[in-house]
Amino acid sequence: MKTILIIGIGAGDPEQITMQAVNALNRVDVFFLLDKGVAKDPLVAFRQSLCERYITHRRYRFAHAPSPELVIGTPDLQATVAALNRDKQAVYESLIASELAPGECGAFLVWGDPTLYDSTLRIVDAIALKGRTVAELALEYEVIPGISSVQALAARHRVPLNQIGEPVEITTGRKIAGGFPEHADTVVVMLDANGEYQRIDRDDLEIFWGAYVGTPDEVLVAGKLKEVAPEIERIRTEARARNGWIMDSYLMRKVTRKDEG
Amino acid sequence: MKTILIIGIGAGDPEQITMQAVNALNRVDVFFLLDKGVAKDPLVAFRQSLCERYITHRRYRFAHAPSPELVIGTPDLQATVAALNRDKQAVYESLIASELAPGECGAFLVWGDPTLYDSTLRIVDAIALKGRTVAELALEYEVIPGISSVQALAARHRVPLNQIGEPVEITTGRKIAGGFPEHADTVVVMLDANGEYQRIDRDDLEIFWGAYVGTPDEVLVAGKLKEVAPEIERIRTEARARNGWIMDSYLMRKVTRKDEG
Repeated sequence: MKTILIIGIGAGDPEQITMQAVNALNRVDVFFLLDKGVAKDPLVAFRQSLCERYITHRRYRFAHAPSPELVIGTPDLQATVAALNRDKQAVYESLIASELAPGECGAFLVWGDPTLYDSTLRIVDAIALKGRTVAELALEYEVIPGISSVQALAARHRVPLNQIGEPVEITTGRKIAGGFPEHADTVVVMLDANGEYQRIDRDDLEIFWGAYVGTPDEVLVAGKLKEVAPEIERIRTEARARNGWIMDSYLMRKVTRKDEG
Repeated sequence: MKTILIIGIGAGDPEQITMQAVNALNRVDVFFLLDKGVAKDPLVAFRQSLCERYITHRRYRFAHAPSPELVIGTPDLQATVAALNRDKQAVYESLIASELAPGECGAFLVWGDPTLYDSTLRIVDAIALKGRTVAELALEYEVIPGISSVQALAARHRVPLNQIGEPVEITTGRKIAGGFPEHADTVVVMLDANGEYQRIDRDDLEIFWGAYVGTPDEVLVAGKLKEVAPEIERIRTEARARNGWIMDSYLMRKVTRKDEG
């Protein structure tokens, strides 16, 4: 039997990792690292720096593999993601089969929280199922939660995710492209490569936007959507050009009334 | 100037606290503790045990005050919560004015994440505004995110919060009393005192429920909603009677297809 830990490592601030995650890091023999190419290497380097910082021994090792890439822009997101996940599963299976000995502990370090817009959990679950009949994939796995970029964003803006007693919807750029949902009071948008907020033509929304939250590159902008959208887009475009990648998210909500406190 | 830290402490597992929160605890002179009566004293004891466990000095102190109680069951939730928050604000102002000296650091330790269904942030923000003209309330404040009960629940069930590319709505028992939202794919329900899931008459939903997640009393139940709802209700009722209080939440989602992995 092999053990796999799926560890949430927070969204950029190395201190936004839990004690549980730190203890989990210390149990690991092999960290699986998926390299997404030069532009996103900082994310691999961040994972390695967490290991150096928080692991109290030096008996762990890294196993690298090239990360299959999502093809963005196809109409059927479900199929695209499913295909990507099949590719990823093949890579993970190969890593688990060849780099991890029986009795050893392997880990995937997941940005943010492993249960929110991340496929590692689904993939490892599928491998565990396969492992019931394939000896080198026989495994147990655990999930360790992490601070998501949503929470890091809200904390830095000091804004509640929900209005009093109201729901909050966490969604994607693709979903928000159809407009601010009619039923919603507050929406948090992740994975918005195209900046869909710019195309939402409503006067009654405010936005709390942030990029690289919790890192030295952090940028925060908040205000009425119509007033600050151009500024956000300018900053986003510049930052993405400068860094080669961007990690941003935002909260939009109706300005219905002044909170009573 | 006084400093107030609003620190998320996770949802019951003392290891589900971030390094950032631990470092914040170590900056604090005075911890403000709101006592909710005998039945909920474990929550105060938990906060004190975190301080003992993670603070490396013994120069901090506790300032207790009775917590104003929410009157549940009134029709206008907004007004009820607003009234409660005014009462709480009065208590917090008194604590900050009388128990915290200028230059000192005070803290509120918030269950879960301070930005999700918690009023501390709104109240401290209102006090900070007042502090611009009232000297003994002049303050700066910071928010430190914490692992929410939602994340603890999903991690223990090893279930993603969202289906691939789909939104997730975080909401309350009161909101779900009208039925599973038509627009929703996945819903996470917090603050459901009445067990509204029992009254949702649909065959296409599955539920992942948990109470006291991350503690020795943890209970988890998952399955088709219709099949497991009676079992959940029985466990809930027994546990609440035994412990005098319950802290539970659940995720419900449509069973639309088997995930592709």
